[in-house]
Parts: sequence; structure tokens; C-alpha cells
Amino acid sequence: MHPPDASTTAENHPPHSAATHARPVSPNHGTLTPLGLDEVRLTDGFWAQRARINAEHTLDHCQRWMQRLGWIDNFDIAAHALTHGTEGDHRGPEFADSEIYKLLEALAWESHRSGDADLDRRFTELAARVAAAQHPDGYLNTCYGRPGRPQRYSDLAWGHELYCYGHLIQAAVARARTNAADDLLLTVARRVADHLYTEFGPTGRTAVCGHPEIETALVELYRVTGQRRHLELATLFIDRRGTGTLPAIRFGAAYFQDDQTIRDATVLRGHAVRALYLSAGAVDVGVETGDRTLIDAVRTQWATTLARRTYLTGGMGSHHLDESFGADFALPPDRAYAETCAGIASVMVSWRLLLATGDSRYADLVERTLFNIVATSSRADGRAFFYANTLHQRIPGRIPAEDEVSASAGASLRPAWYSVSCCPTNIARTLASVSGYVATRDADGVQIHQYTACEIRTRLDDGTEIDLEIITSYPHDRSVAIRVLTPGYFGLTLRVPHWAQGTATLDAGDGLLAQLDDPTVTVRREFAEGETLRLDFDLTPRYTRADDRVDALRGCVAVERGPLVLCAESVDLPAELDLEDLRVDLSVAPQPSPEGAMVRVRRRPEPIAWLGGWGPYGYPLHQLDNDLVTDGGKTAESSTTAHGTVLEADTAASAPEPDLGHWVLLRPYHQWANRGPSTMRVWLPVR
Amino acid sequence: MHPPDASTTAENHPPHSAATHARPVSPNHGTLTPLGLDEVRLTDGFWAQRARINAEHTLDHCQRWMQRLGWIDNFDIAAHALTHGTEGDHRGPEFADSEIYKLLEALAWESHRSGDADLDRRFTELAARVAAAQHPDGYLNTCYGRPGRPQRYSDLAWGHELYCYGHLIQAAVARARTNAADDLLLTVARRVADHLYTEFGPTGRTAVCGHPEIETALVELYRVTGQRRHLELATLFIDRRGTGTLPAIRFGAAYFQDDQTIRDATVLRGHAVRALYLSAGAVDVGVETGDRTLIDAVRTQWATTLARRTYLTGGMGSHHLDESFGADFALPPDRAYAETCAGIASVMVSWRLLLATGDSRYADLVERTLFNIVATSSRADGRAFFYANTLHQRIPGRIPAEDEVSASAGASLRPAWYSVSCCPTNIARTLASVSGYVATRDADGVQIHQYTACEIRTRLDDGTEIDLEIITSYPHDRSVAIRVLTPGYFGLTLRVPHWAQGTATLDAGDGLLAQLDDPTVTVRREFAEGETLRLDFDLTPRYTRADDRVDALRGCVAVERGPLVLCAESVDLPAELDLEDLRVDLSVAPQPSPEGAMVRVRRRPEPIAWLGGWGPYGYPLHQLDNDLVTDGGKTAESSTTAHGTVLEADTAASAPEPDLGHWVLLRPYHQWANRGPSTMRVWLPVR
Repeated sequence: MHPPDASTTAENHPPHSAATHARPVSPNHGTLTPLGLDEVRLTDGFWAQRARINAEHTLDHCQRWMQRLGWIDNFDIAAHALTHGTEGDHRGPEFADSEIYKLLEALAWESHRSGDADLDRRFTELAARVAAAQHPDGYLNTCYGRPGRPQRYSDLAWGHELYCYGHLIQAAVARARTNAADDLLLTVARRVADHLYTEFGPTGRTAVCGHPEIETALVELYRVTGQRRHLELATLFIDRRGTGTLPAIRFGAAYFQDDQTIRDATVLRGHAVRALYLSAGAVDVGVETGDRTLIDAVRTQWATTLARRTYLTGGMGSHHLDESFGADFALPPDRAYAETCAGIASVMVSWRLLLATGDSRYADLVERTLFNIVATSSRADGRAFFYANTLHQRIPGRIPAEDEVSASAGASLRPAWYSVSCCPTNIARTLASVSGYVATRDADGVQIHQYTACEIRTRLDDGTEIDLEIITSYPHDRSVAIRVLTPGYFGLTLRVPHWAQGTATLDAGDGLLAQLDDPTVTVRREFAEGETLRLDFDLTPRYTRADDRVDALRGCVAVERGPLVLCAESVDLPAELDLEDLRVDLSVAPQPSPEGAMVRVRRRPEPIAWLGGWGPYGYPLHQLDNDLVTDGGKTAESSTTAHGTVLEADTAASAPEPDLGHWVLLRPYHQWANRGPSTMRVWLPVR
Repeated sequence: MHPPDASTTAENHPPHSAATHARPVSPNHGTLTPLGLDEVRLTDGFWAQRARINAEHTLDHCQRWMQRLGWIDNFDIAAHALTHGTEGDHRGPEFADSEIYKLLEALAWESHRSGDADLDRRFTELAARVAAAQHPDGYLNTCYGRPGRPQRYSDLAWGHELYCYGHLIQAAVARARTNAADDLLLTVARRVADHLYTEFGPTGRTAVCGHPEIETALVELYRVTGQRRHLELATLFIDRRGTGTLPAIRFGAAYFQDDQTIRDATVLRGHAVRALYLSAGAVDVGVETGDRTLIDAVRTQWATTLARRTYLTGGMGSHHLDESFGADFALPPDRAYAETCAGIASVMVSWRLLLATGDSRYADLVERTLFNIVATSSRADGRAFFYANTLHQRIPGRIPAEDEVSASAGASLRPAWYSVSCCPTNIARTLASVSGYVATRDADGVQIHQYTACEIRTRLDDGTEIDLEIITSYPHDRSVAIRVLTPGYFGLTLRVPHWAQGTATLDAGDGLLAQLDDPTVTVRREFAEGETLRLDFDLTPRYTRADDRVDALRGCVAVERGPLVLCAESVDLPAELDLEDLRVDLSVAPQPSPEGAMVRVRRRPEPIAWLGGWGPYGYPLHQLDNDLVTDGGKTAESSTTAHGTVLEADTAASAPEPDLGHWVLLRPYHQWANRGPSTMRVWLPVR
């Protein structure tokens, strides 16, 4: 982190040339500079495939649904009201505007990435409909502030007006960075930002929006325009959060992070998406203002949240009721909320911290979350989406009808659309810009954070050209080849994921294998054209156990392979095996298989007190007989023995245990629920 | 069960004499006849004390709050609208009327039980205000069906109109059974029932209410009035449920049990209170119509629900979001909803099944639920109430202000009132009639189901007078003395709770101790005046383990003592011990103490991968090293050993384990949160 001297940042920065900054986050300071969509071109492999499905199906899918439901027409109605003073309906949730904005952001990235003229035209058409609804003073919202609708800013707690602006600005920023010539939406965004400065700036009302998002957006707008007052307003919103300007609500002030200031908090809490968007904004403000206290506060919160409030998949948020983080270690797999948007927001935060600090552990979490949350949400065809990402499905999930609008986040397998449909458009904009999260550069060279087939072409500040080709089927293949296309002297830094440290190897071109024990490895030398480095990961599947304070996971293991969390799904089981009856035999290591892994299991003994339906006493709880417990003075060994004796007594009292061993197939979690209704477990009890 | 011959029940039954039936449930058929409030007089002890606090504090508390919030005034406003055609506001939730009705029911029972003229006067005054709001055609609801309010029956899914009638009828029935001379509310209830028969009867609309309750109420009204059409309408509602007459809602049709007919269902599902009220009504209809299929269906559902979807406390319902039962074995203690009203409804169902079948296991669950849910809800002073009854409080609960209306069920320790305040008035009516759940009679004698200090005076059908005095401090005392006050030949049946079978003893007056192995023991002989039987329970505290399919409870034990579930509360711990760090040492039996039990614990080893805040890699999940797992061919013993080796490796890698043993005090769960903010656990991990 190299924060600018305060005296030099007091003036407006000159805007960067947009053409070279086609990237979601474009900080003026920090340790690493992100490579944009022009610099990292996905060629094939895991993320190229997902980006392709996104481009071919998801963008169109989102636009059709919003057209069908009237969410796009809202802008026409609002525009008509503006010019004719008419009343008019509003369709969809109060924040429906933001879904159009997220689609616009996705169209901006994707039209640039692919050069698809049709996508470009759709952006322009949609942007014009949005622009027509802007009030003369810059206000823009189709749900509020016009005849027959509630007054503007009359419900800051729940109205989402500033949240919607945030996504509008992000769409405008994406367009400015990819097609600077089409500046209509940027003009709209600048007028919005000026209006906001008047309303909420130093001389306006002391307030914040119930849903953060405007903060990070204003900083990005500042990065495009160089207008210092955008950053100033973002800083005000960050400083005001936690000072109790929002009204009391049912879920408490922590729900929208108004219980503590960002600098005071030590862990993320409340509504997960809100908490994470706010954190992204706080890092952005900290980076641009040089306020290290903000960055350090978010680093602390990130670390604590990861250690205590994060699912194995990278999912965050365990409460369905208020979509919030639960208490420390309250991570039940079967009631995991782990909203897709929270996963995306977590990637946003981790990426910003990586750029600010250069610490590769942030890229570790980006990888975990991309493969196990972002890749999980979409159905294989990109036309249906998980909102909540459970780690345990006990009852075969229902497959919704293709024309069904789901009213509930966790009620079925992936539906095509939701009445609150934040996740599909969030997936769309993220996959359209996913190549922007692969690599960075600094003064010495290039850092590769995510391994996926791509071509990297960039130029260091000293003019050194670096052209690389990454050839890999990772995470399905253990090898990553990095081919140098242009000779030169530079540093090449490769991330070694947490799970690979100590087992990954690097052949730096000399045929010798170096074992990689550290979080990163850097090769700095004169590279020849065509030279190839080969990184090799040990993709042996591995058992993973949770901190024993996570109640629901005691006595369980998960199986991971490389960066992928695996799961057992009922459709892969022999007919005679119920998923709930599997007990992993830990004496046997999990074996690799082309689909994922094979795990040796036994069936659980019949429960001693179990009764289906009416029979003898049906209580599910059986008692330890205290006769089996001997008083006092025993050693730890005999404690274990006493416990074991009791369990044996249980077994003896029940039917003879069927001693059948089975090999059970586990597949990547992100693939689950693509083959009809099924039950599923990530965490498997051990024998 | 002796169901009546269908031909004899086609005519109206003559009403019972109300004076002898001062009891909540008064079936015309079945195995056991409940003893009413006149027949069982609480003298002292656990339930007498709670009934006293209820009478002295809770009834007044509820009335004052509803007066303050305008819920009682709603009736005056509605009455004025009726006579003057005025518009008028409505305060509180759409079902606020039902809270006044539950208070009326409580006042009816309590004024009779205590003979308190002030309570009697308050009933009369409130009933008059209710009566004034009844429409000429019998309709009565302050939220619907008047100028400025939504139309009557315009929202059967959520409007609660029939639910409100149900509680109105129950209040009228309670009054009819305790003070037949004051028949104003009964008249109102009969007009309501006639109106309902027109609207929803055989020639009316084919519909049900989104919230069951009317079914059981109509059967009780039939039991008072003998009017066959009340029973007929209840039967229609029972038969219609599950046929999809309600609209689609976000939570699915199972939420209000409209997914399956009662006869088809094998387990309770959806909203717990709705499911249980409906079950109570189904048993009532089955008993009065002789339809054994209904009773058998509820018996099956009860057994399955108890085995798979019930907390140790008897609590039911694990979802906060939709207040529903979760899937089988989805019983996380920290997110237990276990609504107080669901506990009360469970007592209603179990009591009905006990009366119908005579099977004492139903009384076992009544006992478990009374001591661990009903007794838990109220604060010690009877002026604040739990709505949700968690089994694990991870963060010290907040104590709400005395004038705070809680908007959320699980947001704090017991608040004085809720915006949705169903539980306090439900507690009020239940504690005012709790003596009605103690004992029954049949042709041969008396059955005692709940042990609490009381006097029992009843007369069998053959004229035999039975007068008994029960002397006990149970559950705090192991002994129950039963003194015969009037000599005679009769049978005396005593329930032996599940946990006491095999250890309880009976001295039937001959000085010999008989060990009781069965669920009940009956002594039938000529009893002399003053003769005393003595029942003795083994109240040694005991460890209890859960079915290992309950994910969150693997590797945990609870401690029970008699019918009481115990818990550890942070205020009882030495300052150096964190509740989350306790690990029970199972080699040592729990020891009795005057407050509950003492349990030997050790502190958990420091976690290997645990990091508070920022430090080395903060991920909460540590990996099993596959090197420690040997491939193939091992026996069960070596499996355990391999697992053990891994754990030892973990321990070795961490700080040396502090080998401090501690005795930790556990107290009855129902007492928790009466001594300031604390953390609490029922289920304790084992070492």
C-alpha cells in the first residue's frame, strides 16, 4: 500500500484513459494493479466456458424476464410521468431498477469482451430508457418520487434508492471503461452523483441508505471522472455508518451495520450482502484517501469472519430470516443461507484487499468462493439460479416450472427467476468480468492469482511487455503450463493455494521440481520466447474437518479436491443406500476418480431408539446408562473407553450392523442439482 | 376408545351440566374422562406457584398491555362503526382480537378457580365490549368487514378471521363450563357458529382458514351446546384441509397443512402451531364422530414427529423464517424456534390423545413440555415471556426495556410484550387451567398423570367417591405421597414416566417397595381412610444423547434430572471458563446438587487452526493429513485408532492442553435467563 500524500490528493485526479482500464476495480494506489479484460483473454477452460454460457444464455434470460415482468417498462412509465405528470404503476420490488443496472453492467463488460454488436446495441437502447426517467435535478428512481408513488428518500431504511444509484453508477463505470464514446449513462451517473452530493453531502442531510452499495460505486466513479467530491461523499457515507442515523427495525441496527462504526467493528455482522458491499466501499475509500485505519479494520473483520462465520464453500450468512451472519460458529449446513450475492460481494472485498496489500490469502478466498458459490448458483444452461446455497439437502429438492417466479430463496432447486431477483443479474455481471480477477502486475512483473486457460498481455510501467499463455484444465487437471510468448526480464509470481502448500511443485523450465511451501513463488529472470514453466498440484482428494465449535459438523468430514468442495448426491448412490445413513470409514483414504472422488462408507447401525411411526416408545433420544459410567479418578483413555462401551452397548442392543462397505462417488458441489431432484450432503458423518 | 354408534350420534346430544365440567377438554367418548378444575385443586408446589403468579401478575399484565396498545379499543371502534357507519382505525396485528379472547378464556378459568370477584367482573366487562361489535348476521372481527377496512373473508390465507372465532368460542366454552349463568359470550359464540355454518357449511363456500383453531373450538362448542351442526362444520373443515383450497403462498401449501389431507399425512409439517391446533381438532372430530381413521392418523403423526422433529425440551418447530417444523432430524439447538404456543398446542394434542386412548406416553410428553417449554416461557415474575425457546444462547441475551414491544421472536431475552403477542395470553389461559391436565377417571378409578401437590375429589359413574391428597415437591423432591381421604374400593393408576421405568418404586401402604418397570402401575383394592401410598423416583441426574442423525448434537450430551432438562448458564461458571470451551468428562457421572446437577468438565484444547482476528492463516477448517490415513483393509478398531491418531496429532501441534478439571453447575432449563444477560447451553460437547 502506497497511500498518496494528502496534499497531492486534495486536487482532482486526472481521469485514467478508459481504454486501458477495462476492469471492475481500478484503484489509483495499492500494492498490485489489476489486469483488465483487454489484458486477460480467457481462451478455454472452466471460466471461459462459464463466461460463454453467461454471454449466450444468461444475459438474454435476465433481459427477457425483466421485460416480461414489467421491470424495464418501469422506466418508460416513470419517464412518461416526468414529462406528462401522469400517475403510473410500478412493478416488482422497490429495488427492481438495480436489476436493470446490473444487467447493463453485464452488457457493458460482455459487449466489450466479445465485441458483440448486438449486446452493444442492447446496452445503448436500455441506457436510453434509463436516461429518459432522470429528473431535471438528477434524481432517478422508478419506485419513488413521482405522482402516485411515495416521496423520494421517504424510507431510507428499506427504500434502496441509494443502493440502486450504486448499481447505476457501476454500470456507467463499466461502460466508461469499455466504450468511452458512448457516454450517455456516464452522464446520467454524474448527474446522479451531483444530486446526491447536494442531498447527502456536507451541507445535506446526515443520512445513509439501509443497503450499502453507493459507497464503492462512488469511489469507482471518482476513479473514472477524477471528481474529488464523489470520493468525498463516499467517505461521508462510510464515516456515518454505525452512528445510528437509520431508524430502529425489527432485526436491530446490526442488520444494516448501523450498530458500530466500521473502524470499531471486529467482525462482519447483520445482513451479509450489506456488510460485504459496505466493506468493499470502506477499502475503496481507504485506498483512495490513504486512510489505513479503514483498510486495517476491514482486514481484521475479514479474518475474524473467515475464521468463525464462513462456510467451507466460502458461503457467508447462515440466517434465512434476516439473511444475516449468525453468531460465531453458528454454521448449520442444512440451514446455510450462503446467498449467491454474498459470495459475489465476498469476492469483491477479497479482491480489493488483495490489490491493496498483495497478500495472497485474499486470492485463496476468491478462488474458494468462485468455484464453490459463484459457479454453483447457475444451472448448467445458465437459465436458472440458486439464491441460497445450502450444504445439505435432506429432502429431494423440487424443480420449479420454467415460468415460475420463486417467492422464496430456499424453497426449491434453481428457479428461472425470483420475485426478489438480485442473484441472477449479479451472476451475469460477475461472469462477464471474471477475467478481471485473474492476474495483476506491479513494478517488477505479473502475479497470477487464478489458474484458468487464458492469454495475458500487459506492459509494466517501465515499458516491459509481458505476454503469457496459460494452458490448463485446472481444477480438473493438476498441471498448469505457463508459456512465455515475448522474451524479457521480469518477475512471474504464482499463487500457491493454502491446500497446496507443501505438495505443489514447480518446474521453472530447468526440468527440476521445486516443492512449493509458501503462499506464493516468484521466478524473476530473463525469459526466452516459448519457454514454459509448469506448476503441478497434488489433486489427491482430502478429508477436511471443521473447528469443533461448529456444532453441526462435529464428527463429520468433508472431502475437497484441489479448490473444489465435493458432495455426495443421492442420484449417485446405490438404490439400497440412503444418504443420511452413510458413515465415512476414515481408515481408508478418499480415492481420486474422473468425476471427483470415491469414499469408502459403511451404513450406520440401526438406531436403538428409532421407530418409524407408531410402535414402542418413539422418543428420538436415548439415554446413556449411568451404570456404564464409573465415578471419578479415570484417565483420559478410560474416558474414551467408557464412551466406547456405551456405544457398543447401543449397537449390541440393536439389529446386527450390516457390515457392508461401499465406495460412494462424490462430485464437485457446484455441479449438484443438475440431474433432477436429489438429496445432497457436503459434510458426511464419520463411522 | 369407545366411539359411539353412528346411529346414536346423528341426533343432537343433550348438553352436559356445565357445573361439573370445568375443564378445557370435555369429550363425550374415549378411554379416560378428564377431571376438571373443581375436582383437582392445586394446594402448593410447582404448578400451584405458577398458577398463582399467573393469576396475580400475568392476567393483569396482558390486559394492561392490550389496553395500552389499543387492541381492546378495537372492539369499541368496531361497535361504533356498526351503529354509526363510521370508519375507524385498527391497531395491532390482524389477529389482535384473538389475544383478547385468550385473555377472556384465562379470566374465565381463573375467576372460577379462585372465586375472585374482580376477575369475574373483568370478564363480564370485556365480554360486553366484544359482544357490542358483533354484526347482526353474527360476523365479528375488528380488522375486517367494516367501512375503511378490507372486506370480510377477503384474505382467508392470512386474515385469521376463523382463527379468531376459534379463540372466541374457546373463551365462551370456558365461561359456560365455569359460570353458566353469564351466557352473553356463549350467545355471541353460538351466533358466530351459526353464521359460519351459513358461510362455510355444506351449502356455503368450500374453504378453510389459513390458521387452524376453529376446528377444535367448534367441537368444544358442540360439547357444550349439543348442537350437531357445530360438529358437522368442524368435520367439514377437517376434511377440506389438504385439498388445496388455500391460495399458493411463498412458504408452500405445507405451511398451513394444505398439502396433504390429515388422513394421508404421516408427520407434522409446516407452521408448527397451525399443525398442532389442526391435530387437536382432528382428534376432537374423530372422538365425537367415531372416526377412528382421524385419531389413528394423528397418532402416527405424533409418533413420527416426536421421533424426528422434537427438541429434548418438547419444543417443536426449528425454522425462524416460517415458524415451521424443519426436515427430519433438523433440530439445531442454537436456531431452535420451539415457539411457546407450539408447546401449548402440543400439550393440547397429547392430552386429547391420552383421553382418547389411555396411553400414558402422551402424558409423558405433556410432562416434558409443561416443565421445559410452558414453565420456561414466563419470567419468574410472570411479566415477560419467551416466544422462541432456544436451547443454546451463544451471545449474552439482551434484556429489553420494560416498555419495549418486541418486533421479533428471538431477538432478546424475555420481553414484556410482542407486536405479535400470541404467547403471553396463551400462557395465561394454560396456567389458569393447568389443574385440568393432572388427572382423569374411568369406570374403575382415578389415573394420576402429573405429580404436583393437590387435592383430588371426584365421583365415579357408579357413585364411588374418591378423595385424595397428593403431597410432593416433585420435581424437586423424589417422593410423591398419595393420601386417601375417603375410604372405598377403587383403582388408583399412577403414571411411571419413561425415564423412571425400572428405577421408580412404590410403597403401596404395606411397607414393601415394588420396582416399577411399566409405564403405569395400578393399585385396585379397598382403601382405608388416611392410608398413604408412596411413589419414589430416582432423581439421579443422567446423561442423554441424541439420535446421531441430528447433526448439531453429535458428540454432545444433555443432562436431565427427573422430568427436567438442565442447562449450563454462563452466570454459574467460574470467570476463567467460557461456556463454549466446556467439554464434559463422561468418565464421571453427573452428581445431584440442590440446584440441579454438577458435571465434571475439562476445557477444550486450544484449536489448532484458530485465530482471533488477523494473524497467520485464519481459515476455521483444518485438514486431516492423509498421510495419517492408511489405505484399505483395516478393521473397525484401527479405523478408530487412525481417527484418534489424527486427533492426537492436532493436540500435539497446539498449545499444551490445560488439564484443569472443573465441576460445573447445571440448573433447570426453565429457570434460565432470570439472572441477567448470559450465555446458555443445554447440549454440551463431550471430551
